[in-house]
Amino acid sequence: MLKKFLDILIGQPLANEQSGSEKYNVPFGLAVMASDAVSSVAYAAQEVLLVLIPAIGMLSYEYLGYISIAIIVLLFVLTISYTQIIKEYPHGGGAYIVAKENIGVNAGLVAGAALLLDYILTVAVSASAGVAAVISIPAFSGLYTHKVEMVIGLIIILTILNLRGVGESSRIFSIPTYLFIFSMLFMIVYGLIKYAIYGAPAPMLHDNLKMGGQIGLFLILRAFSSGCSALTGIEAVSNAVPNFKEPSQKNAIKVMCLLTGTIFFIFGGTSILARFYHAVYIENTKVTVLAQIAYGVFGGYNFMFYVIQFTTAIILLMACNTAFTGFPMLMSVMARDGYMPRSFSTRGKRLSYSNGIVFLTVIACVLTLIFKASTDALINLYSVGVFISFTLAQAGMVIHWQKSDAPGRTKGKIINGFGSIMTLVTAGVIMGGKFIEGAWVVVILIPIIAFMMMSIKKHYNKVADGLRTTEEEIINCDLGKHFDHVIVVPISSLNKATLGALKYARSITPDVIALNVSPNKEYIDKLKGRWEELDTDILLVSKYSPYRAIITPLVEYIGVISKAADQNEKITVILPQFMTSGWAGQFLHNHTGLILRESLLKYDNIVVAMYPYHLDVK
Amino acid sequence: MLKKFLDILIGQPLANEQSGSEKYNVPFGLAVMASDAVSSVAYAAQEVLLVLIPAIGMLSYEYLGYISIAIIVLLFVLTISYTQIIKEYPHGGGAYIVAKENIGVNAGLVAGAALLLDYILTVAVSASAGVAAVISIPAFSGLYTHKVEMVIGLIIILTILNLRGVGESSRIFSIPTYLFIFSMLFMIVYGLIKYAIYGAPAPMLHDNLKMGGQIGLFLILRAFSSGCSALTGIEAVSNAVPNFKEPSQKNAIKVMCLLTGTIFFIFGGTSILARFYHAVYIENTKVTVLAQIAYGVFGGYNFMFYVIQFTTAIILLMACNTAFTGFPMLMSVMARDGYMPRSFSTRGKRLSYSNGIVFLTVIACVLTLIFKASTDALINLYSVGVFISFTLAQAGMVIHWQKSDAPGRTKGKIINGFGSIMTLVTAGVIMGGKFIEGAWVVVILIPIIAFMMMSIKKHYNKVADGLRTTEEEIINCDLGKHFDHVIVVPISSLNKATLGALKYARSITPDVIALNVSPNKEYIDKLKGRWEELDTDILLVSKYSPYRAIITPLVEYIGVISKAADQNEKITVILPQFMTSGWAGQFLHNHTGLILRESLLKYDNIVVAMYPYHLDVK
Repeated sequence: MLKKFLDILIGQPLANEQSGSEKYNVPFGLAVMASDAVSSVAYAAQEVLLVLIPAIGMLSYEYLGYISIAIIVLLFVLTISYTQIIKEYPHGGGAYIVAKENIGVNAGLVAGAALLLDYILTVAVSASAGVAAVISIPAFSGLYTHKVEMVIGLIIILTILNLRGVGESSRIFSIPTYLFIFSMLFMIVYGLIKYAIYGAPAPMLHDNLKMGGQIGLFLILRAFSSGCSALTGIEAVSNAVPNFKEPSQKNAIKVMCLLTGTIFFIFGGTSILARFYHAVYIENTKVTVLAQIAYGVFGGYNFMFYVIQFTTAIILLMACNTAFTGFPMLMSVMARDGYMPRSFSTRGKRLSYSNGIVFLTVIACVLTLIFKASTDALINLYSVGVFISFTLAQAGMVIHWQKSDAPGRTKGKIINGFGSIMTLVTAGVIMGGKFIEGAWVVVILIPIIAFMMMSIKKHYNKVADGLRTTEEEIINCDLGKHFDHVIVVPISSLNKATLGALKYARSITPDVIALNVSPNKEYIDKLKGRWEELDTDILLVSKYSPYRAIITPLVEYIGVISKAADQNEKITVILPQFMTSGWAGQFLHNHTGLILRESLLKYDNIVVAMYPYHLDVK
Repeated sequence: MLKKFLDILIGQPLANEQSGSEKYNVPFGLAVMASDAVSSVAYAAQEVLLVLIPAIGMLSYEYLGYISIAIIVLLFVLTISYTQIIKEYPHGGGAYIVAKENIGVNAGLVAGAALLLDYILTVAVSASAGVAAVISIPAFSGLYTHKVEMVIGLIIILTILNLRGVGESSRIFSIPTYLFIFSMLFMIVYGLIKYAIYGAPAPMLHDNLKMGGQIGLFLILRAFSSGCSALTGIEAVSNAVPNFKEPSQKNAIKVMCLLTGTIFFIFGGTSILARFYHAVYIENTKVTVLAQIAYGVFGGYNFMFYVIQFTTAIILLMACNTAFTGFPMLMSVMARDGYMPRSFSTRGKRLSYSNGIVFLTVIACVLTLIFKASTDALINLYSVGVFISFTLAQAGMVIHWQKSDAPGRTKGKIINGFGSIMTLVTAGVIMGGKFIEGAWVVVILIPIIAFMMMSIKKHYNKVADGLRTTEEEIINCDLGKHFDHVIVVPISSLNKATLGALKYARSITPDVIALNVSPNKEYIDKLKGRWEELDTDILLVSKYSPYRAIITPLVEYIGVISKAADQNEKITVILPQFMTSGWAGQFLHNHTGLILRESLLKYDNIVVAMYPYHLDVK
């Protein structure tokens, strides 16, 4: 039943890998790449205001302007810097790969850990902001108390879709992205014109803002840190170069530039509108800044207000979804390199990296619960990881140029050097500005995760060393040298499954022992009687178990045989395994077999075989 | 690491069953049996007042008296009735066994389902009431908002202790039980004398109680239903007869009578004190009635007040603990009968029924979350199940006497007949009185669970039928008839583990195929080169996998072999299995093997064998 249920939910297993999905042209590529990067404008300006307003009141709007300019400068620096990576890494250069190849393994692992955390936070932040957009609509404001449940529900729906293997490369996803971009552009242009003609309307929320503190460098830096979340996702293009149509690098650069332009216009535009229309955002404000702007620009809860809210919610959902592609993919790359458990490198039945997806879901849900689905709280953890990986990628590029002898290497070194310094400073600012509010969590987690990955690699290396055979060992290896076999078949009764297993055993060696443990003496006598009717040379050993225990006596007896065996003897234990159709098999059978298997594999000279017996029972 | 952590938490595996723990004498037996039954006085009177006060104000105290008398009458009827079961079931007669043996399987399953629900509710109710007792202490009242977390924390601690195998039979548990009983008796005697001399003190909470409704039969019945929770746990003695010292039945009856006396005094006493000291309990009252009484009797927050609160909390915890013994035990009995998955009948490493314990924990925690750890809300579900099982047990006894020809059978029939009618009426009253408030949940769940148990049994029966062999089949069975063997060993490289597996395979049959799938053509050539150095007659099949998939091509190729095999051929697939010491093995290895195993066991003629290779790697 569970299996059937999962089949309906996740879909029938796919038969084989169908690689080579459609490649991106420029407009399609922009749509795919845009969601993560562009969606962050939904909360970036708002989070800046959250820091500023309680301290400096009306002055906040002026400083929002300065901070936006600084962020936009950073945006252009990053764009130019990442263009270099696209040129040099035609097969895709994520921070993990660039840092590992150029700086070294440790830098790569730190970048990888930072990216993994970033993906997890993308899920939690985007889903929370998406639900906030919907709740900003008056009709849905009653859902505010169920925000956490809604965010977790959303994440779970995305999980199911991704386990089914939706991916992000479906052309249908272009539509909402462009809808969002164009409705935002429309709002910005319309809002600016309206302001130029009519001036500011009455703001949606009270704007009697008082200065509660002072302007200070630390305040500005904290506000800037919050705003930097607008830049997350910008690196996506450089990872995806091989997915673009030929000439792939050129197309990727085109998309990168268009993306930067889009962010510039939308982030810059909303920052100006927030100022003109006096959007207010302090603790416990339940209406997002974007909703307040839309209300002001379009003059009420009208059609365009709803369009802005819904397209915002959808693009945030899609941003969330990019993490569901990126996280399992990065996990699988690291797992193949041996830094993550190998199980993350295998695809599930639907060809998605199911383990990575489920892992992402669990952690993102835990984060959502801890931070009560508050974008304001989660944002304090965000960006640190992103800028650490930015810095490592740029620094890796500097070293890459150092080693290179390509014509543009000096220019490249200067660009990436400048980029890496800028992002390093930003990372420092974010860490310092948000440390107490939550960035410390990330600062502690990154080295722990990196260390864990190194330990995993070390373990795999040790195992590989332990298993390795020399040329000499292979030449001297005589596979024909025979083992002697003793086979033990644990049986509960003489049923069709056990008879099959005994027949199989007897065809390997005459040294077969049928082993029975029973708490019932009469039953043992009865079994012995039936055994005689079998007329076989297989030995039946029947043990009486006074305390009803079955497994312990079985393991003990087999352990004795194992110890008595000489070096060339292998003991094979054959466990009849019921295979029933339907849901029941999972829960109702083979429990004893499972425990026996785990217990017996601890012995060096015991091979455990499962003899399936198929029964057509629902 | 996880394993180590669990080892520390749950303890090292126990080597073997050490049955036959100490048998109970009368005082020890009373201590063990008392916690569940006696602890319910901590909330029974309070829950009666919760129903009455909002409706009839000051009149509540008078009706509390009438209701308490009715409950005490029921207590004596039950005691006499259960004495009969103790006499007739020297090996222990729970409602499940008595109903199943005398009335029939369906009645037994209904009783069993009712008991299982009752155990789950005992955990949720007792833990919630225990935390409520602690929170009634002013110093801890701030914890009120964390009640749910505290209750779940408590349940988890009990789970761990029980997975370690604490059990309830440790003599140390007698101390807090007697402490509770004697401090309660002291409070009652002291409170009555104080009242006789000084009259009622000013009550702890306002007692300006107004009538908000009317006295009516339905109100009285609802209040009575709540009070009936005082009688839960009374049946425990009859289950435990064989655990008593000889003469076990006589000792059990003695304990049963002492238990009844204790409940009579404590429940009756607290009901009277609640009246004299005007304890008030309405919705959202954060101080328990027992705490209010203790405050009134001892005149403030003094030493004795704390003694009452803490001993109450501890005895409630112990009541909770009895369910952790009873539930898994009943599950194991039903699992052995085939009505529950067999996995519930096997003991864990520490000889506790771990599956049952974990199952109980999960459901009790879910209940606690749903009902926000409110004793008031949970109580509405409680008692229905208990009284259904009481009724079925008594009715079973009536039929038992019907069939019997023992001298006391007429007397027995009358006693149990009267008992069963009384409990049936009570069950009906509880169901009717509390139906909307929550009893409907139980009324729906009991038949669903009973039906589920029947389905499980049916499934096991079908499997048994499918496996059964006739006398004739056994006589004609020729175990010596040989299978022909083809062995497939999937290998990734020529390492020590795969060489071992190949050697093992070759010693069974010359028809061995080493099967390799690799996404790397160069690697395949290298492997073929090394293979030649081996100089073996084993066939190497190397398949190139363009899309990195490993498992699918392996399964496909083996599937082809399976289909091509003729009837007397068995294909054995040998999977080398790494066994590493330490925590890593669980997570870092054998993932491919696991998936292969599940996929291959679906074929009728494929036996899957695991060849362990032990590596001493941390």
